[in-house]
Amino acid sequence: MSNKNKNKIFKPRPISGFLEWLPEVRLVELQWLDEIRDAFESYGFGSIETPSVEEVEVLVAKGGDADKEIYALRRLAAEPGEEDSSRLALHYDLTVPLARYVAQHAGDLVFPFKRYQMQRCWRGERPQEGRLREFMQCDIDVIDMDEVSMHFDAEIPAITLEMLHRLDVGPVCMHINNRKILQGFYEGLGIEDIVGAIRIADKMDKIGVEGVLDGLVEDLGIEEDIAQKCVDLAAIKTNDETFAAQVRAFGVENDMLEAGLEELMFVMLELAHLEKGSVMADMSIARGFDYYTGTVYEGKLVDYPDFPTICAGGRYDNLVGSYSNKKLPGVGISIGFSRIFSKMIKEGRVKIGAKCPTHLMVACLPGTPRCEVSGTARALRDRGFKVEMYHEEKSLKAQMKYASRKGIPFVWFPANSEQPKHEVKDMDTGEQVVADLATWLP
Amino acid sequence: MSNKNKNKIFKPRPISGFLEWLPEVRLVELQWLDEIRDAFESYGFGSIETPSVEEVEVLVAKGGDADKEIYALRRLAAEPGEEDSSRLALHYDLTVPLARYVAQHAGDLVFPFKRYQMQRCWRGERPQEGRLREFMQCDIDVIDMDEVSMHFDAEIPAITLEMLHRLDVGPVCMHINNRKILQGFYEGLGIEDIVGAIRIADKMDKIGVEGVLDGLVEDLGIEEDIAQKCVDLAAIKTNDETFAAQVRAFGVENDMLEAGLEELMFVMLELAHLEKGSVMADMSIARGFDYYTGTVYEGKLVDYPDFPTICAGGRYDNLVGSYSNKKLPGVGISIGFSRIFSKMIKEGRVKIGAKCPTHLMVACLPGTPRCEVSGTARALRDRGFKVEMYHEEKSLKAQMKYASRKGIPFVWFPANSEQPKHEVKDMDTGEQVVADLATWLP
Repeated sequence: MSNKNKNKIFKPRPISGFLEWLPEVRLVELQWLDEIRDAFESYGFGSIETPSVEEVEVLVAKGGDADKEIYALRRLAAEPGEEDSSRLALHYDLTVPLARYVAQHAGDLVFPFKRYQMQRCWRGERPQEGRLREFMQCDIDVIDMDEVSMHFDAEIPAITLEMLHRLDVGPVCMHINNRKILQGFYEGLGIEDIVGAIRIADKMDKIGVEGVLDGLVEDLGIEEDIAQKCVDLAAIKTNDETFAAQVRAFGVENDMLEAGLEELMFVMLELAHLEKGSVMADMSIARGFDYYTGTVYEGKLVDYPDFPTICAGGRYDNLVGSYSNKKLPGVGISIGFSRIFSKMIKEGRVKIGAKCPTHLMVACLPGTPRCEVSGTARALRDRGFKVEMYHEEKSLKAQMKYASRKGIPFVWFPANSEQPKHEVKDMDTGEQVVADLATWLP
Repeated sequence: MSNKNKNKIFKPRPISGFLEWLPEVRLVELQWLDEIRDAFESYGFGSIETPSVEEVEVLVAKGGDADKEIYALRRLAAEPGEEDSSRLALHYDLTVPLARYVAQHAGDLVFPFKRYQMQRCWRGERPQEGRLREFMQCDIDVIDMDEVSMHFDAEIPAITLEMLHRLDVGPVCMHINNRKILQGFYEGLGIEDIVGAIRIADKMDKIGVEGVLDGLVEDLGIEEDIAQKCVDLAAIKTNDETFAAQVRAFGVENDMLEAGLEELMFVMLELAHLEKGSVMADMSIARGFDYYTGTVYEGKLVDYPDFPTICAGGRYDNLVGSYSNKKLPGVGISIGFSRIFSKMIKEGRVKIGAKCPTHLMVACLPGTPRCEVSGTARALRDRGFKVEMYHEEKSLKAQMKYASRKGIPFVWFPANSEQPKHEVKDMDTGEQVVADLATWLP
């Protein structure tokens, strides 16, 4: 680094796909994160964090689309051929790190292992609405030895909906399906390339009914009436367990289909106590190429139907199996925190207030000995208030302007020679009253 | 990704320099982070977060040693010549991102801008004790227009010491110096290459007194008696403001030296109320090549004198100037959270308890209708308890073993046909008593 360069000014600009908030927005973001943590913990889920990086082999072990979005690390001053850092890459979700964590630490964990994880993830994709390159994700998952209770398949969306309700993001609908229904139905229809067919049907949102029919018939050589049944299945959406009768009405007979219907009915019945419209059995949900093997979830903001999915997940029987010989199935959900929060900010649905957490500013006026000011601040802090002293020796006007611009609700004037009692000013009403240091309450 | 590869097991292993904790340790880590946040906020500091990445030009703008440790991002599937991601790199501290943030958002901030920031940082260095490749850092800084009150130079270490005391890490000594003392003293001695001389003197810990003397005399051609004075200056360490008289006794006359002495005396006097031994004026502290221009801090764990510095910082007049034409000086400190926490864990000084945050597990026994169990859990949750239901249909013994292994303090038995009243078992004492759902308290 030359000295010449040191004196140059580099004018920074926002980096596309990476969020950064002003302090007043960050204050609300912190409240949201606290609320989420509290919701997860109220159901006994415990926190874990994993490193931001995994070995590249771990990240690509499950296969799938995400590979090409992975950010690998390279030391800026790497020697040619330096291997060490190039085998590390930033994680793109929290599910793969969880699977690796459980495989690695299985002997030290108590099962069923219930964890939440709130961390940043990174994807090198083209930024667009709802798609970020760095984002905070909040996940809950349950992993158990050999078998996971189906009750968790119902509890996971219930916790998620309760948490989103606490954040006041407006109505949310959790669309629920079961991969066994799709797989069994397609199998029962005699379709050979089931993965290929699900892949095409899953694009309904993008290519429409005609596109899906064309794809099934032309790309996979499926007969038209069979293809039509696939499309008709995807149209079944009910707020209760009546979807099963509609599916059975096709007359497709298959054991896996039946198992899927039973599982989804179980989940829908367990969630029957939730607010009407907050859960929907939706036969169009497939979750793409992912590792899911049973229940699948996709949550949507009802007020913004075109906005991408805000949370998604499901049951996976084999994910930990990429890293371990043990059978460790799981079920969980990922909540796109940054996606939801930035949408609510953009729509003006978040109330932005103060620019700092301070409850009280202690003013520092001429005539008040400094030790009196700092002693007052300390006494209020000891009582649990968030207190700052005004340190500059500036006019009362400048100090009040600072408190007002920061949104500090109260200003405290310590006793001094001219004013024998403490006084406190309510910045909202402008009222200033005598106050007792030991007993004052806002 | 081929299907063949998908079925291979990739056995994961810990990645050197990246921490990962079991749930029971993470639970304590979260308490620590909450405590730190609370300490910072109690002084009116507000949170910000910045992206994990900055443009490479931002990171290298201040110059210095850190450049070669920077991790740049590269899309794993980058096309040859793809530029987009290669200009991004992970930040290696939180001070440079703060300077960039303030330069970028100056118009939207209220000054003095007091922020705390608790985020991961990354450095591609060789891992060793206390040195990690990914670490959580907790920073507080104050940045103001044109001038920062000297009171902040004293408040910053006071907050840091209070916070570390709350974490119960044992005695901490904050070593404080002022760069103006070093620079003025060396200038007053007629030394030409002041930066070079400070650089050599700063290695005292590593190369000893003889090494420093050799370096000053042989590398910089400084006369022996002058070099001896540099070494003697570095030996001055006092717990109060008496250091100034010892420095003045050298008879070196220099305006900058005098200004530095006055500033450091001011800071030491403001901190005189702190516990004896927790602050020390220490003329050996220089903070290497860094951007500091006045007060400098280095905190040490008194019980582990060989352990690296646990927090460091100081006053910088020109840092934001790398990114803006405005004069925005600041003062702050960086606390090496991961370094301290992992040391305390290693030394067994952290009490590790439960493996989950659960207060109460509601047992699920045959004979109790499931809606009774879930209703009980919901009622306790509504009262603010962290409650989990046992979902598997397993024996009482299996359920109690789960609660005991997870460290859940209480198990609740809902009323059923055989047992008409709710009962709760204290897992610590083994005592089981009748309990009221609406009024029970632990």
